[in-house]
Amino acid sequence: MSQTDQPLAYAHANRARFVTELREFVRFPSVSARPEHARDTARCAEWLADHLRRIGMEHVAVFPTRSHPLVYAEWLHAAGAPTVLIYGHYDVQPAEPLDEWHSPPFDPVESRNNLYGRGASDDKGQLLAHIKALESCLRTRGSLPVNVKCLLEGEEEIGSPNFAPFLAENKKALAADVIVASDTTMPGKDRPAITYSMRGALSLELEISGPEADLHDGHFGGIVHNPLKGLCDIVAQLQTSVGLITIPGFYDRVREVSDEERAFMASNGPTDEQLLNTAGIGRGWGERGHTLYERATIRPALTITGIAGGYQGPGPKSIIPARAVAKLNFRLVPDQDPLEIDRLSRDHIARLTPFTLRSTTKLQLAAKPVVVDRRHPLIRAAAAACYKGFGATPVFVRSGGTNPAVGAFHYELGLPTALIAFGLPDDRIHAPNEKFYLPNFHKGIATSIWFLHEVAIDREL
Amino acid sequence: MSQTDQPLAYAHANRARFVTELREFVRFPSVSARPEHARDTARCAEWLADHLRRIGMEHVAVFPTRSHPLVYAEWLHAAGAPTVLIYGHYDVQPAEPLDEWHSPPFDPVESRNNLYGRGASDDKGQLLAHIKALESCLRTRGSLPVNVKCLLEGEEEIGSPNFAPFLAENKKALAADVIVASDTTMPGKDRPAITYSMRGALSLELEISGPEADLHDGHFGGIVHNPLKGLCDIVAQLQTSVGLITIPGFYDRVREVSDEERAFMASNGPTDEQLLNTAGIGRGWGERGHTLYERATIRPALTITGIAGGYQGPGPKSIIPARAVAKLNFRLVPDQDPLEIDRLSRDHIARLTPFTLRSTTKLQLAAKPVVVDRRHPLIRAAAAACYKGFGATPVFVRSGGTNPAVGAFHYELGLPTALIAFGLPDDRIHAPNEKFYLPNFHKGIATSIWFLHEVAIDREL
Repeated sequence: MSQTDQPLAYAHANRARFVTELREFVRFPSVSARPEHARDTARCAEWLADHLRRIGMEHVAVFPTRSHPLVYAEWLHAAGAPTVLIYGHYDVQPAEPLDEWHSPPFDPVESRNNLYGRGASDDKGQLLAHIKALESCLRTRGSLPVNVKCLLEGEEEIGSPNFAPFLAENKKALAADVIVASDTTMPGKDRPAITYSMRGALSLELEISGPEADLHDGHFGGIVHNPLKGLCDIVAQLQTSVGLITIPGFYDRVREVSDEERAFMASNGPTDEQLLNTAGIGRGWGERGHTLYERATIRPALTITGIAGGYQGPGPKSIIPARAVAKLNFRLVPDQDPLEIDRLSRDHIARLTPFTLRSTTKLQLAAKPVVVDRRHPLIRAAAAACYKGFGATPVFVRSGGTNPAVGAFHYELGLPTALIAFGLPDDRIHAPNEKFYLPNFHKGIATSIWFLHEVAIDREL
Repeated sequence: MSQTDQPLAYAHANRARFVTELREFVRFPSVSARPEHARDTARCAEWLADHLRRIGMEHVAVFPTRSHPLVYAEWLHAAGAPTVLIYGHYDVQPAEPLDEWHSPPFDPVESRNNLYGRGASDDKGQLLAHIKALESCLRTRGSLPVNVKCLLEGEEEIGSPNFAPFLAENKKALAADVIVASDTTMPGKDRPAITYSMRGALSLELEISGPEADLHDGHFGGIVHNPLKGLCDIVAQLQTSVGLITIPGFYDRVREVSDEERAFMASNGPTDEQLLNTAGIGRGWGERGHTLYERATIRPALTITGIAGGYQGPGPKSIIPARAVAKLNFRLVPDQDPLEIDRLSRDHIARLTPFTLRSTTKLQLAAKPVVVDRRHPLIRAAAAACYKGFGATPVFVRSGGTNPAVGAFHYELGLPTALIAFGLPDDRIHAPNEKFYLPNFHKGIATSIWFLHEVAIDREL
């Protein structure tokens, strides 16, 4: 009998309960960006810690940070075996716009093999799959095939501001051989994927202000510079019509990708057509000379994620607003440094600000881009696990998204992360009606069980 | 004893009660732009109708429209005398942003001779001054010196969509010789003013849409055209950096104002410095070759009054929003036609819309610009009344604002409107902490009493 038989059978037998537990987990509105949800987020961390204790993990602890706590657990009795650190995040994106949800975001509904709810896919469902794998091993065999540490954070969706410092301060306690995390997307139901690169990110909030209070646009329209118009003018000047970023020096450190790597990407990654289908749009956009997949992964981007200014209710209102705010998200690629881009952006915005208005720029998130060598033995173990869990050979893909924790593991601990995707392209993460495809939850649990065993037998790890 | 002695004495003796009644009036949140306040607005109309009945006005009626009702009242027993139609509006601007109010917008507070509350100045206080003048005459002399019709609307702040049609359908019933209204601003406490021109207005809502749902900017940033960025690009292209409007044909019908009129404006209107002080800004902005007063009155303007798109909460959110909306307010001058400008704008916006996005433009308000001959006998009567009510010779000014009703009286009934200002430049109309200077309420009542008598004795009216 193989070591994985009993855990896999246990996971299979407990499918319904596992889904019930996932529903419980999704029910916490652990929206890290919203101060009013700080208590919900803390309660979610406690629930997770209790859960880890109950399945047999040890030294479970909830570490407070400046905002949302980290949950830690370990099981270190596999003498001589490698140590796997499982990473995930229990915080979620804000659920807005609420009126576009077909069911309440924090009261999960199951329909046609999908569980609908904010965070169901990103990242509660994917994270819980690993925990259920640990449970399946511990409850059947009383042990794990490797040493395991879990480090689960509550700040991923706000850029993990306290995560890298926590790693830096706890290098010894967090020592491990490899990291595994599932917080990504596979190309399709039968196409498992391992992500080997993620873009970095820089989020800025730009405020343009003018008069001290809102003014009547009848009385002052034409003689007072409108901050909202000034904001549009500045935002319009940050990019060309195809999105090329005009900030001087912005592209200086962008690493050119070799023809060999581009060929590998073309044969493993999504086609333009697949990406357009996933986005639900008819036409692509962006920088010439690159496929859509390349534009979204090995090229940087700037997205205005929100603008708020003036009156937003129904009907007209006659005002010149006193101020206006834009949220800017940069996605960065090696070897761009978010803090350098922050400085270049501030300088450029200051130059673009007319003397009749004032601008201020606040840094909200900075994360470095990261690439894992896809020939690393860790990736080999992950690929084998994927194959066994999903019944298909995984593709190796780059993600256009950002996971600051993966960067922190890379830059602080010098450790590679295996990103095994359990999410689907149509999971609508970050959007209304997010869902998790439940067969992937169960295949994810099996994949995680296999992964722990693959790491245990890999001689290079 | 003069005919005005008793009414003026009555008004003086009842000052405190009149202020109490104004507070009652301001307490209705009659926000015409907000569907959730439709009942409050209707209740406010009923209150006004009851009030008119109680002071002795006749045939008081509340006429429903497609949105908010019109209140009508008359007193027509001054045989052989002219008929004055008193216009005003009981609806108010939205009170947002609520957190910038020092006292609740609909729970008026009196402080240092000012009454604070939304609508206190625009237009409830100014409107009630005329009603209290009617009461002062009717209660003391049992009659009015002229025939009077009151037409008070609840849709001014949303552009009076049903007002001109109502006039057109009721020309006979509304027949009058002159119109009087107070919904404007005087330059300072001791400087009464009569407004002889108002700009027209065109309010459009521009929506730019792209993907069907919000997308993750990590996955799609750089390959999907962002509607919010597209909106900024279009808005930025509608005007030059000094506000000149780039819509082809926009200035074609702008009437040049004679040097003589510009000289009159310079000697009667505010200086650049006064306008900057009123706006509370250090530097002016706008079209060269014109004073600030000219830019705000005889030149058209475009103000972006609001933009809503994407995430507006605290912290970052990783989305490409599916759509974004901008509110555009044009202020127009003779002989610009709002419906022609609407068409030119739509055409231009359609040309500016890239093929990767879609744009739709909704008309929300259209009002023609209007100029009253300042040598009309009506204006002479109003000036005499101002002099007696405020103790100073009024200035004749142009307003940059819009009152669709004044345009409707001009274009539908062929009648001139005397706009006698009771508001002050620092009343913060349309902004948080709107207030009405109570001494102007009382001087306004006296001015209205004088006005009715001046019209009665003017041989040319």
